[in-house]
Amino acid sequence: MNDTLHDFRVATEDLERFMREVLAAAGADQASADAAIRALVTASRMGTDSHGLRLLPHYLKALEGGRIKGAPRMVFHRRLAATGFLDADDGLGHLAGYTAMEHAMAMAGEAGMGAVAVGNSSHFGAAGCYALAAAERGYIGMAFCNSDPFVLLHQGAAPFHGTNPIAFAAPVAGDAPYLLDMATSSIPWNRVQQYGAIGRELPDQVAADAVGRVTRTPAEVAALLPLGGSDFGFKGAGLGGMVEVLSSALAGMQNGFRLLPMGGPDMATPRGIGHFFLAIQPDAFVEEGTFARCLADYLADLRSRPAIEGAEVLASGDREWRCQARRDALGIPLDAANRQAYAELAREYGLCPLSRIG
Amino acid sequence: MNDTLHDFRVATEDLERFMREVLAAAGADQASADAAIRALVTASRMGTDSHGLRLLPHYLKALEGGRIKGAPRMVFHRRLAATGFLDADDGLGHLAGYTAMEHAMAMAGEAGMGAVAVGNSSHFGAAGCYALAAAERGYIGMAFCNSDPFVLLHQGAAPFHGTNPIAFAAPVAGDAPYLLDMATSSIPWNRVQQYGAIGRELPDQVAADAVGRVTRTPAEVAALLPLGGSDFGFKGAGLGGMVEVLSSALAGMQNGFRLLPMGGPDMATPRGIGHFFLAIQPDAFVEEGTFARCLADYLADLRSRPAIEGAEVLASGDREWRCQARRDALGIPLDAANRQAYAELAREYGLCPLSRIG
Repeated sequence: MNDTLHDFRVATEDLERFMREVLAAAGADQASADAAIRALVTASRMGTDSHGLRLLPHYLKALEGGRIKGAPRMVFHRRLAATGFLDADDGLGHLAGYTAMEHAMAMAGEAGMGAVAVGNSSHFGAAGCYALAAAERGYIGMAFCNSDPFVLLHQGAAPFHGTNPIAFAAPVAGDAPYLLDMATSSIPWNRVQQYGAIGRELPDQVAADAVGRVTRTPAEVAALLPLGGSDFGFKGAGLGGMVEVLSSALAGMQNGFRLLPMGGPDMATPRGIGHFFLAIQPDAFVEEGTFARCLADYLADLRSRPAIEGAEVLASGDREWRCQARRDALGIPLDAANRQAYAELAREYGLCPLSRIG
Repeated sequence: MNDTLHDFRVATEDLERFMREVLAAAGADQASADAAIRALVTASRMGTDSHGLRLLPHYLKALEGGRIKGAPRMVFHRRLAATGFLDADDGLGHLAGYTAMEHAMAMAGEAGMGAVAVGNSSHFGAAGCYALAAAERGYIGMAFCNSDPFVLLHQGAAPFHGTNPIAFAAPVAGDAPYLLDMATSSIPWNRVQQYGAIGRELPDQVAADAVGRVTRTPAEVAALLPLGGSDFGFKGAGLGGMVEVLSSALAGMQNGFRLLPMGGPDMATPRGIGHFFLAIQPDAFVEEGTFARCLADYLADLRSRPAIEGAEVLASGDREWRCQARRDALGIPLDAANRQAYAELAREYGLCPLSRIG
């Protein structure tokens, strides 16, 4: 988020061009590439760097290895007025996510609410992208996803849940959506690696060693703590569990504890990830327009509350939309590792590299 | 939860008898009393003492003062196949909660999912009671409620959200339901008072003074911190916001920041609390029975994970069901304050007091 003038920055259009060329070269069809690009660029514009452009090399490896199909035949089975199942046919999770949310919104348009469980899917990037897709079309959207184990249970000594995200977005009349996109651990796994690389101590109560003891030393970290830390981690772990039950059990997938690791080494076998998407028509309960008015009142009340010294009170999403405005104007920054990874992709696939604008 | 042999303990049936008599005396009709008793006794049996029998004197005051109607005419308006609104007519929130969840389940039975926004309601006790009501009937249940401000925003200096709970319950074949019932603050408000009364320091990162500085001294506390504390409270605050948007905006109620305080002094004016309930038919996505099998596998995996020394790994709800079994066998304990409060109610209303069995 510290976008300085000295960053290597790229224009959104150039990033999209590069992603399109490399995804096509790796065998992704048009719909799959469009969805992956939409999700990665959305995350990078918003400043969700853990789930933005840095994930492209990972998806390419999974496509090349055969774990993910570049031309899946995803099939939606509507079951009842408000529920259905999307078989993602081991395609890219981004296509599964946007497709499922489309079906959830279509049902919400008729029934007031719609939910889609997704099975046989893969990593879908930032959960917020799909909640946002609903909010951009006037629906409240929620998205959940399980993942392989990185996070301890409360009082646990070994990882069990993934960072299992919860995303919630709501449309705001005349403004950017309200958007909460959070992992149910305090920090993401890649922050441990980042802190290790720069020799920095972690915050307290976010990670543990191989026997479950809390540690602030990145080199000792074997697992993340659930949100709430040693004292209140039963809440973070409970939220992680809720996400797990919605994502895997409703779709008939295995729970995250049994998933093949995202990072390989097996890049040939599909992982069978589950997602869950929910869309709600905001005017399906009381008079039309009431929700928009109440949400505007809530946000006005929230933003008028005093902050502690030197800080600022923000609604969920405010930070993201500011970042997006800045990056749309100045370009999206690539750190040294991403610069190198993208340069290698350009060489490997024989593509015109990204142009630096910063 | 430390139910010792020296406690003053009462039988569930005697507690229900006493509650029925005193609620009738305060003007609650049969349906309202049944619902309030069900919710309070459920919470007390599970060990959720903050939301169990201790709240009875509060509801009586609100009934006597006219804030809550003892004989409300609650009206359900079904809007679409999966959505509707319950006007709670300023009755007891417990009746609103169980009634709304019934309607949500009826819609979920047809449409796969059902959601009910509730307006013109009042305090409903523990959110878990209503999620549980769904799970006991084979549905996944979720319950949300806003409340008057006790909790800071992330980096905020003054309270804004209530402790805005999230409850999630799922049916488990042949066993007690999976149940998460959590406030989006780390601790409830009454724990500050309990710790103050016994001269104990609070845990770190759970409460703040009048200018938003974190404090562990109960006497200095002016607000609670959102789950996640100073570093990660944007997650707890974001969850609190999600609960607020679902509870108040969908129902057309004012946000919690503008609610009359639960504690009075005005016990005549209705508060207009909003709730949101969601029921999901677990077999409405893939083949019947799949959900039950997957959830059982998940719970078996979870319960087999190692714990840190001297501790135990539990699924959400496990602690509650153990407490319930113990209290069903030994009675429900009343602490000194509740003992006194119930003795006063017996005198005030001229009722036979609770019988001590411990």
